[in-house]
Amino acid sequence: MSMNILVLPGDGIGPEIMAEAVKVLELANEKFNLGAELTFDDLGGAAYERYGSPLADETLERAHQADAILLGAVGGPQWDAIDPALRPERGLLKIRSELGLFGNLRPAILYPQLADSSTLKPEVVAGLNILIVRELTGGIYFGQPRERKVLDNGERFAFDTLPYSESEVRRIARVGFDMAMVRGKKLCSVDKANVLASSQLWREVVNEVAADYPDVEVSHMYVDNCAMQLVRAPKQFDVIVTDNLFGDILSDQASMLTGSIGMLPSASLDANNKGMYEPCHGSAPDIAGRGIANPLATILSVSMMLRYSFNRADAADAIEQAVSQVLDQGLRTGDIMSEGCESTGTAGMGDAVVAAL
Amino acid sequence: MSMNILVLPGDGIGPEIMAEAVKVLELANEKFNLGAELTFDDLGGAAYERYGSPLADETLERAHQADAILLGAVGGPQWDAIDPALRPERGLLKIRSELGLFGNLRPAILYPQLADSSTLKPEVVAGLNILIVRELTGGIYFGQPRERKVLDNGERFAFDTLPYSESEVRRIARVGFDMAMVRGKKLCSVDKANVLASSQLWREVVNEVAADYPDVEVSHMYVDNCAMQLVRAPKQFDVIVTDNLFGDILSDQASMLTGSIGMLPSASLDANNKGMYEPCHGSAPDIAGRGIANPLATILSVSMMLRYSFNRADAADAIEQAVSQVLDQGLRTGDIMSEGCESTGTAGMGDAVVAAL
Ligand SMILES: CC(C)[C@H](C(=O)O)[C@@H](O)C(=O)O
Ligand SMILES: CC(C)[C@H](C(=O)O)[C@@H](O)C(=O)O
Repeated sequence: MSMNILVLPGDGIGPEIMAEAVKVLELANEKFNLGAELTFDDLGGAAYERYGSPLADETLERAHQADAILLGAVGGPQWDAIDPALRPERGLLKIRSELGLFGNLRPAILYPQLADSSTLKPEVVAGLNILIVRELTGGIYFGQPRERKVLDNGERFAFDTLPYSESEVRRIARVGFDMAMVRGKKLCSVDKANVLASSQLWREVVNEVAADYPDVEVSHMYVDNCAMQLVRAPKQFDVIVTDNLFGDILSDQASMLTGSIGMLPSASLDANNKGMYEPCHGSAPDIAGRGIANPLATILSVSMMLRYSFNRADAADAIEQAVSQVLDQGLRTGDIMSEGCESTGTAGMGDAVVAAL
Repeated sequence: MSMNILVLPGDGIGPEIMAEAVKVLELANEKFNLGAELTFDDLGGAAYERYGSPLADETLERAHQADAILLGAVGGPQWDAIDPALRPERGLLKIRSELGLFGNLRPAILYPQLADSSTLKPEVVAGLNILIVRELTGGIYFGQPRERKVLDNGERFAFDTLPYSESEVRRIARVGFDMAMVRGKKLCSVDKANVLASSQLWREVVNEVAADYPDVEVSHMYVDNCAMQLVRAPKQFDVIVTDNLFGDILSDQASMLTGSIGMLPSASLDANNKGMYEPCHGSAPDIAGRGIANPLATILSVSMMLRYSFNRADAADAIEQAVSQVLDQGLRTGDIMSEGCESTGTAGMGDAVVAAL
């Protein structure tokens, strides 16, 4: 199995954290004989500066050729005022869509070593381990028509469209159920079926798919209630499956519950488990270039990639163990710092993981 | 000024909690010479049973005639399987829309006496006092077209539309700014302008309205980030203004941060401050009929009504003080119970507020 990996460091802290992840990947490559070949390119603001587009055609071509993609993060205030069609986020949305990466896995895990970092009471979040499965190439993010115009009465007016088809719901529901099967066998599908037509179809199709997974306990929850329950009793959840927009909101909320968003990787998979892997956090322009960002989410994205796209649980486990060991040693970047621990920077953390590996 | 109030107890715990609120309102009526006249009717499931519709024409007519409306809560599992167009929620959505109640005020306040009830650490939520201003008659809740169909390839397909016009955004933005002026002079507008056309218009119009409120500090936040920030550092917010769907999600999340959702009233106002007032919590079918629901959110909705729709700060203050006094006495319903306090039921709590008043 070939292992051609396209590395897209992106913007803000992206290049710094990616440098550490690449160090770790290169060591794992040697140690476990992975046969990984890395190609580097730009996405987002960096691509806009270099190619005049947040996703150049040649980059997209490289992404198609690659077996997997590692992404840092995109975006920054310097591109706030440019043509919306050229903004960094557009590159991210386009690569998701063009590669058909419809299955977005966003784990929210509380690392026991970081239990204090959560703003929630320890008893509410201890042992938290939720997987949010977000539909990533459909819904209101890509729905057509979307338009902005001036009405006859002279008023400005804009609208978006939220569409879902049966097959789009079915395939993401399957990802949710498959994940539930290898986890706690509980799936909560989140929608707004008391208001939205698309949600009514969503709920119906999830119930149909459920028939193929008799071992999974299925429930349905309205998105407003889910946002409440994630605060009230987050440990009630195992796998949550939901649409693109709700998944965007709920996964950010859930990751913050852990207090360690700097630790959380994510995967975006196509129908053949080809994937793009990236940290859950953003490009953090405010701390970019200062060597203080936490590289662990990106390092753990490498491990997620080896596990899901290349079936290399051996190397994936080793990286995760190395990260855990570094946390046990008490090493912390600023975002996860707490009393009695030893403060370090981006490179220091990366080096420590390399040493542990 | 006439004070004709339409009382709609609704479903689930609605009738129980409303009975207590009415006791309090009747006493305030006497004590403060309010001249309130009450009419009673049904909404939601109760209306479906009585009239065959979740909002009967004659009820809507009474709502139009009234100066203000007091609502308990609607919905319950016994109506899950009926024609979606007749479900309890439809009555609620229709009354909001028909009366033009576009301005939904949802405070999230942590009562000092109940600080322990929050799942968040005390230092994160102590003194929390956020007001969410939610647009309530537009956006994806009411957008047309919305449709469900079968595509040419035989697949089921459904879509919703998320529209906003300049005037819709402007009037809700004004409510947000007006509220900020009488509070902490900080307004955060929440949207998803990096993805949605409607959000781009939203942000543009909020910025235009801001010019009329130079004393208010304005910021913009993406909805996913806001869901994170509400967990990370909720006290950074004063007033949040947002669209119908985002407001639904964020207000539920914010109310749960306080740990005392049984305490939170809400108001839905039209252009002339005519309003409908209701607790933030739902109809809680699981505890309906057992006399254990917390009536305080409904009692505080009475006080909100007297303040916003009738300018009777005197009576509103007195009710709020009575509630505070009862909490100081240590009286608690189950949802807010904590060690060392005295447990009571719905009627016990209502009677205590009446006594304190
Ligand atoms: C940058 C933005 C377009 C993106 C999204 O909304 O999907 C981000 O928030 C995410 O969750 O990956
Ligand atoms: C019952 C439902 C339709 C309603 C809404 O989504 O607006 C409720 O969740 C609310 O927030 O008042």
